[in-house]
Amino acid sequence: MKQIESIKEFGGWLNRYQHESASCRCTMTFSVYLPPKAENGKVPVVYWLSGLTCTDDNMRTKAGAQRYASELGIALVMPDTSPRGDNVPDASERYDLGQGAGFYVNATQEPWVRHFQMYDYVSQELPALIEAELPVIAGRKSITGHSMGGHGALICALREEGAYRSVSAFAPICHPTVCGWGEGCFSAYLGTDREAWQAYDATELVKAGAAEIPLLIDQGTSDEFLGDQLYPQDLAAACRRRGFPLTLRMQEGYDHSYHFIATFIGEHLVYHAKALRE
Amino acid sequence: MKQIESIKEFGGWLNRYQHESASCRCTMTFSVYLPPKAENGKVPVVYWLSGLTCTDDNMRTKAGAQRYASELGIALVMPDTSPRGDNVPDASERYDLGQGAGFYVNATQEPWVRHFQMYDYVSQELPALIEAELPVIAGRKSITGHSMGGHGALICALREEGAYRSVSAFAPICHPTVCGWGEGCFSAYLGTDREAWQAYDATELVKAGAAEIPLLIDQGTSDEFLGDQLYPQDLAAACRRRGFPLTLRMQEGYDHSYHFIATFIGEHLVYHAKALRE
Repeated sequence: MKQIESIKEFGGWLNRYQHESASCRCTMTFSVYLPPKAENGKVPVVYWLSGLTCTDDNMRTKAGAQRYASELGIALVMPDTSPRGDNVPDASERYDLGQGAGFYVNATQEPWVRHFQMYDYVSQELPALIEAELPVIAGRKSITGHSMGGHGALICALREEGAYRSVSAFAPICHPTVCGWGEGCFSAYLGTDREAWQAYDATELVKAGAAEIPLLIDQGTSDEFLGDQLYPQDLAAACRRRGFPLTLRMQEGYDHSYHFIATFIGEHLVYHAKALRE
Repeated sequence: MKQIESIKEFGGWLNRYQHESASCRCTMTFSVYLPPKAENGKVPVVYWLSGLTCTDDNMRTKAGAQRYASELGIALVMPDTSPRGDNVPDASERYDLGQGAGFYVNATQEPWVRHFQMYDYVSQELPALIEAELPVIAGRKSITGHSMGGHGALICALREEGAYRSVSAFAPICHPTVCGWGEGCFSAYLGTDREAWQAYDATELVKAGAAEIPLLIDQGTSDEFLGDQLYPQDLAAACRRRGFPLTLRMQEGYDHSYHFIATFIGEHLVYHAKALRE
């Protein structure tokens, strides 16, 4: 792991790293914000998973999250959204498949299977690397994300029992097996067997008996993708049916942009910081 | 003036407008953040002037300023950095001249003179438009900015006696008549008569007897442009010589980026909000 950039912000350091990923078989780039507190000891970590088309840069530039991470004494880890590079398959005419659209699954189909192992990357390889190389408390981690990354955060927390102290999501794709974005990526990465898709679908994981962890979700009512792609009502129904703990906050008038994330990221980080202290 | 976008953020509204500018003789785009308080009455305004290459989008996306504006009950006005359009002259091979680099002066030279009247635009036309069309308190305004925009903020406050309640700047170009960026733009826009340049140079305006207004400046010590372009030491010397009130804070380890601005914009907006209340 090589540090390629370091920018001072809110008294801490916003660093960018590159490493050779074993899961994705390519050079991966990610950013980490280390709060001032990390200079004198280890801190807990919040992982942020970004949405379609994003790199590690969107969150660090647009959300204003580093202010809260500085105040709360937590590190923020911001990975890329897919493997990258000239040797990595892509669907260059599409924003919602291939590079920038890894969907946080382990692909099983050609031509994606060799590199698109983003589930293993974000849930296993990256945390192990971070805990080995940076001043963070091993195992003391939470996860959140936006849109495709909100989906990623939810499935990581629902599949990896006990791995995360807390989970939250901004406008997540709650039921990817029934929406256009999810169907497009799942059919490409996972093939035509829809049974296999359910292992990466928050609503289906709740239905199938995932261990309980409280889910905190903020969703704007003016989100342009709410009707077609996100389906929080499906996740809410699945949670209601089995008494699974969900706090779904419909935020009046907010859209799908980083301005929505900026508005509520402070509350989410306070929520995670509390879980990470306990 | 036509509203072309409206995004909810921190309970208020981040709006984008277009209008036909009389000063710049083209369609100009700007953004305004209106805090929740503006729904029930008029609020004071802070003008933000951006740096080279920026549009109205950089500040609204990258600085996290809307959070503070929401809490403090102040509007933020974010203009573009130059006239724009196919009919507007440009130096397309250069980032530091022409479109995106108006330098907040009134050009007197061909081919710039017809459109590049950014000083009049930001100090006269835009405030008059804002006060006529939006829920702001007439005349209750402050100004700040970054780099070329920090220069712009300083010269507006030093030239327009009594027009601004307060002024501050992030890594401003303090002595443009002696730095490469300033010499490039001033010679193009204002011609070879260096006397004429001094009317747009903060250090020279202080030397020439500008009316007192306290200047608040934050400057990162790791700013990559500090040695060659910014010259805060020249402004500090001019202020010292006549007892002009300057608070120049050298911020250890910070660079020239929006991460630096994000770190200190809250303190600047609190400073302006206090002056705007008095």
